[in-house]
Amino acid sequence: MVLDLRLLREEMDLRRPAPGIGTPRHEDDEVEILSGVKDGMATGGALTMFVRNRDRDSDKYKQFRDKPRPGHADQTAVAKYGECHDIRGGGQFSGRMTAALVAGGSIAKQLLAEHGIVVAAYTESIGKVVDARRHGIRDMLSIARCNDLRAASEDVIEAMREEILTAREEGDSVGGVVHCLIDGVPVGLGEPFFDTVEGELAKMMFAIPAVKGIEFGAGFRAAAMRGSEHNDPFVVVQGRLRTAKNDAGGVLGGISNGMPIEFRIAIKPTASIAKEQRTVDLKKMEETSLTIEGRHDPCIAPRAVAVVEAAAALVMADLSIRGGIID
Amino acid sequence: MVLDLRLLREEMDLRRPAPGIGTPRHEDDEVEILSGVKDGMATGGALTMFVRNRDRDSDKYKQFRDKPRPGHADQTAVAKYGECHDIRGGGQFSGRMTAALVAGGSIAKQLLAEHGIVVAAYTESIGKVVDARRHGIRDMLSIARCNDLRAASEDVIEAMREEILTAREEGDSVGGVVHCLIDGVPVGLGEPFFDTVEGELAKMMFAIPAVKGIEFGAGFRAAAMRGSEHNDPFVVVQGRLRTAKNDAGGVLGGISNGMPIEFRIAIKPTASIAKEQRTVDLKKMEETSLTIEGRHDPCIAPRAVAVVEAAAALVMADLSIRGGIID
Amino acid sequence: MVLDLRLLREEMDLRRPAPGIGTPRHEDDEVEILSGVKDGMATGGALTMFVRNRDRDSDKYKQFRDKPRPGHADQTAVAKYGECHDIRGGGQFSGRMTAALVAGGSIAKQLLAEHGIVVAAYTESIGKVVDARRHGIRDMLSIARCNDLRAASEDVIEAMREEILTAREEGDSVGGVVHCLIDGVPVGLGEPFFDTVEGELAKMMFAIPAVKGIEFGAGFRAAAMRGSEHNDPFVVVQGRLRTAKNDAGGVLGGISNGMPIEFRIAIKPTASIAKEQRTVDLKKMEETSLTIEGRHDPCIAPRAVAVVEAAAALVMADLSIRGGIID
Amino acid sequence: MVLDLRLLREEMDLRRPAPGIGTPRHEDDEVEILSGVKDGMATGGALTMFVRNRDRDSDKYKQFRDKPRPGHADQTAVAKYGECHDIRGGGQFSGRMTAALVAGGSIAKQLLAEHGIVVAAYTESIGKVVDARRHGIRDMLSIARCNDLRAASEDVIEAMREEILTAREEGDSVGGVVHCLIDGVPVGLGEPFFDTVEGELAKMMFAIPAVKGIEFGAGFRAAAMRGSEHNDPFVVVQGRLRTAKNDAGGVLGGISNGMPIEFRIAIKPTASIAKEQRTVDLKKMEETSLTIEGRHDPCIAPRAVAVVEAAAALVMADLSIRGGIID
Repeated sequence: MVLDLRLLREEMDLRRPAPGIGTPRHEDDEVEILSGVKDGMATGGALTMFVRNRDRDSDKYKQFRDKPRPGHADQTAVAKYGECHDIRGGGQFSGRMTAALVAGGSIAKQLLAEHGIVVAAYTESIGKVVDARRHGIRDMLSIARCNDLRAASEDVIEAMREEILTAREEGDSVGGVVHCLIDGVPVGLGEPFFDTVEGELAKMMFAIPAVKGIEFGAGFRAAAMRGSEHNDPFVVVQGRLRTAKNDAGGVLGGISNGMPIEFRIAIKPTASIAKEQRTVDLKKMEETSLTIEGRHDPCIAPRAVAVVEAAAALVMADLSIRGGIID
Repeated sequence: MVLDLRLLREEMDLRRPAPGIGTPRHEDDEVEILSGVKDGMATGGALTMFVRNRDRDSDKYKQFRDKPRPGHADQTAVAKYGECHDIRGGGQFSGRMTAALVAGGSIAKQLLAEHGIVVAAYTESIGKVVDARRHGIRDMLSIARCNDLRAASEDVIEAMREEILTAREEGDSVGGVVHCLIDGVPVGLGEPFFDTVEGELAKMMFAIPAVKGIEFGAGFRAAAMRGSEHNDPFVVVQGRLRTAKNDAGGVLGGISNGMPIEFRIAIKPTASIAKEQRTVDLKKMEETSLTIEGRHDPCIAPRAVAVVEAAAALVMADLSIRGGIID
Repeated sequence: MVLDLRLLREEMDLRRPAPGIGTPRHEDDEVEILSGVKDGMATGGALTMFVRNRDRDSDKYKQFRDKPRPGHADQTAVAKYGECHDIRGGGQFSGRMTAALVAGGSIAKQLLAEHGIVVAAYTESIGKVVDARRHGIRDMLSIARCNDLRAASEDVIEAMREEILTAREEGDSVGGVVHCLIDGVPVGLGEPFFDTVEGELAKMMFAIPAVKGIEFGAGFRAAAMRGSEHNDPFVVVQGRLRTAKNDAGGVLGGISNGMPIEFRIAIKPTASIAKEQRTVDLKKMEETSLTIEGRHDPCIAPRAVAVVEAAAALVMADLSIRGGIID
Repeated sequence: MVLDLRLLREEMDLRRPAPGIGTPRHEDDEVEILSGVKDGMATGGALTMFVRNRDRDSDKYKQFRDKPRPGHADQTAVAKYGECHDIRGGGQFSGRMTAALVAGGSIAKQLLAEHGIVVAAYTESIGKVVDARRHGIRDMLSIARCNDLRAASEDVIEAMREEILTAREEGDSVGGVVHCLIDGVPVGLGEPFFDTVEGELAKMMFAIPAVKGIEFGAGFRAAAMRGSEHNDPFVVVQGRLRTAKNDAGGVLGGISNGMPIEFRIAIKPTASIAKEQRTVDLKKMEETSLTIEGRHDPCIAPRAVAVVEAAAALVMADLSIRGGIID
């Protein structure tokens, strides 16, 4: 397989913080390929990609060992790994680890594309600003790839930006929802019971820091629905079996049914905020307050779009190999 | 380890359909232990449990091979397994497969109990009837184990029952939400990035037929929150580190933080309904209609409570073994 | 896939003790199929087979908890599982566990046969009696399947039998070598480095109790060879690439090279012997002696032939699925 | 855990070719640590080590794509990976891949050492020169670490060297046997049936290029033994349960029994030899001859000693973590 390194670079850039709404910390996220590629072709051996950290201000993290940041993994990491935990930048719990997902996902996307499977996502909401329109994959591949909010409707871009900037001004952060679509999936991917399409995607999505929920198709709305309303009727479209709508999100019995796979991801507000917060001094076991310095992303959702896509692509590539679609 | 077979029986019964609101199909769900137990003790060898199907009316399923039921796995299963697929009762896609989860989960619960970890769940909503109260594990272990709706608030029981009976009378079905709590979890379970507590639980939950979403702590509500609102402040309670609230659902950075693990599961309305539905005759590739005979559960949520608990217990037992809490 | 249950029965019989040279303990080894088969076809769901123990004289095993049998797992099992270990018949360390391998292997053989892959083995030596001839797969499928020694040369049968009967008369046991050939393997099975053809087969073979060594092709003889002697020259035979001999045993770089896969398995003498042996009374921590009553196989090698074949078939089926040969 | 990088360097050096008997190709095998270490301590995150190739003469490998080298993976690799296969230096089938095993094994050794488990090996034979003495771990840690043949008996060193030099002079290569001992292993490591100590070690050993056989304890000799001769009698030594000898190689029922784990590995003669060999021109499908230029190791056994140790250490570390000995 010939690797498109330009596409890899493009995906890495889509994950980088945008001027104005993202953190000013600068990382160029250059991907060094250490093994597995020769003359632009994957050799079949292990493909190793390496992304260095460069812009790192490590000193300011030391205090979090004793005064854990609310909403962060400082406390759990120190409890689990003790003195050894590398707390700089959050260590292995850092959002920077998702750069590797995007790099790997870029390769998975290229593999999937050869078999007509396309993964795309967009920012469905930021805080209270919700894009209520339904979007097909084209909006995601065109509009949402061309604006820094990763919005699929052009008329919500400025409201979303405002929501983020207001939060930042108040020393706060805000959450959002990422909506993902996987098109061109053949019928029959996924394995019954334990290794379902939904289960595999869900497990991977929770690898992304800040993800707190996932729902497929109608998702939680299905809980309030009647069966006659939720069941997707089978229909024939241009001689092919389809469903009239897609409340199942493309999965029945854990197996892809040939409709687009569709899911939504809840992204919590960034844990690092400028506002003073309550925490505990672990040495004294006394309550105290904490102010986090430095400049962080006030909203991670737009950057998470590239990460959700990459993570989904990795899962779909695995399921496709397992299902014999890709060899 | 001494096995409490009475508890196993009790858990199996909690999954069985309740008179009135459940399917009249009768299965006693007797668990035969084929290996791994001697004189009531687990031997350390593979523990094999077997639940036979008895009350099976197979003939009525034949037609679904050609006329797939909307919302069911008939179409995907036939596409994946072809002629070999055993469509009787839904075959390996049947909700009956969850009997095995409950049997296994009962053993996992006993293992966890020895280490102070308790898993419990309840029915948070049925259709439009929502129990908006927050419940601690006690309500789940007492109230919710003693009514057939598996409700944790006594005053919602009849409204929930009404919701189900109305749906049934209309030849329809209705969905619901199951809420689960895991108490007594030590800090440090789960592995960073790929094998997080959330990821492992989520993957397993999607093994349960009809599950369409999962969220931890504030979940999708977090998407509309500010960081200052969502972050759980650290506090000291009786000399121990806790958080003042639990919007994180007991997990930070994918690792348990010592607070109860809390998640909600969306259960779609049962796919089998008496109402006429649109489907396709696969032989003729023509649209047609389908009426499903037989009597099915009009709502699976109350029965799913036992299944969600069992599935969660299996995951927590695995994570506890991996984390060195249980050997 | 249609399952040939007659072949399953035949394989189970090949593992059963032969009159005269085997243990008189009688087990009919009936295989109950609990799931995964309908109308003689595999459904695609989990195929569960169950073999009951019937003829079990449990009382005589009790003493081995305190006085472990030399060469057996009594001591290690009690150290690992404590009081819970089921020592009857050796519990999960019993040679009877291989009945399950043969049952599963019989299905794997049928799957492989559809793709032209054939697994067969024979008894190469019993004690000092060695069959020095080289055999092709035909001898194994004809001669070796038709005599109770599983010998591939008819003229060694009686000497092998004599070797076993002499050992038995002396209250002793004897070891042997099983030689296995896998024919029709396409080029390219196995994965480089960790999951090689040799590594996967070797791991599985050590699951068989009494196996103490495995070698591929020239094996340990290769250690004393020159490269010019060991390297298999490439040749063209009827337009196809072959090697002039097969000292590599059909595997180069961990990957099948299209020649038959060939390996030899060392089977230790049965640990249970009538002769008095030295052991330790674990309660008193004093050396003592032990006489094992009951009647055991004086040589397990002939029965191991069916087990080695089954174990090899399971591995080859897995590698074939992974390699995309079987879907 | 504090990492001893000096020991890492030492292990890497033990794998490097020795002047005179090894290949003159020069690689310094410097290990760059890319992640997982801070201030000399393992952080608990993924530990990534990277060894670059420097001295690579790639051009001479091109011809092997069409004219595969006997005994090498050229043919199988091209069949499996096609045009993409990177044939330079053998690509992912190169013996250089074992540098990574040694780097990883060095960390595993340090982890094991903290729990009293020591892995050591030596060259038992080179071609016809066999060291027939039995050695304890001390000879391996002292003598065998201090000579370039990795011999444990000083008086075989020159004969072994001669064997290698003679082979080289004749444009040939020679095989050998590596003998490995693991001391200090507690009772109870390994899992019954599929994941035995022997199976896990065996699988890993076959990852090492040139390995063609493995045997534990008496191994293939056991096939010709009587049970009364092979069974290791239990005895009490200084109040502890031991066996009077160790023909079992430290494993009973697949589980460690507290005696040293002992196994032997057959190493085939290096496939690359200067002598002319027969091969096939794959383009013309005609038999032809091949002369491999360049200078290769005439015997890989002494260098394999470090690799076998490392591979064994990785397996024992995994089994120790799984067995709860190491957390």
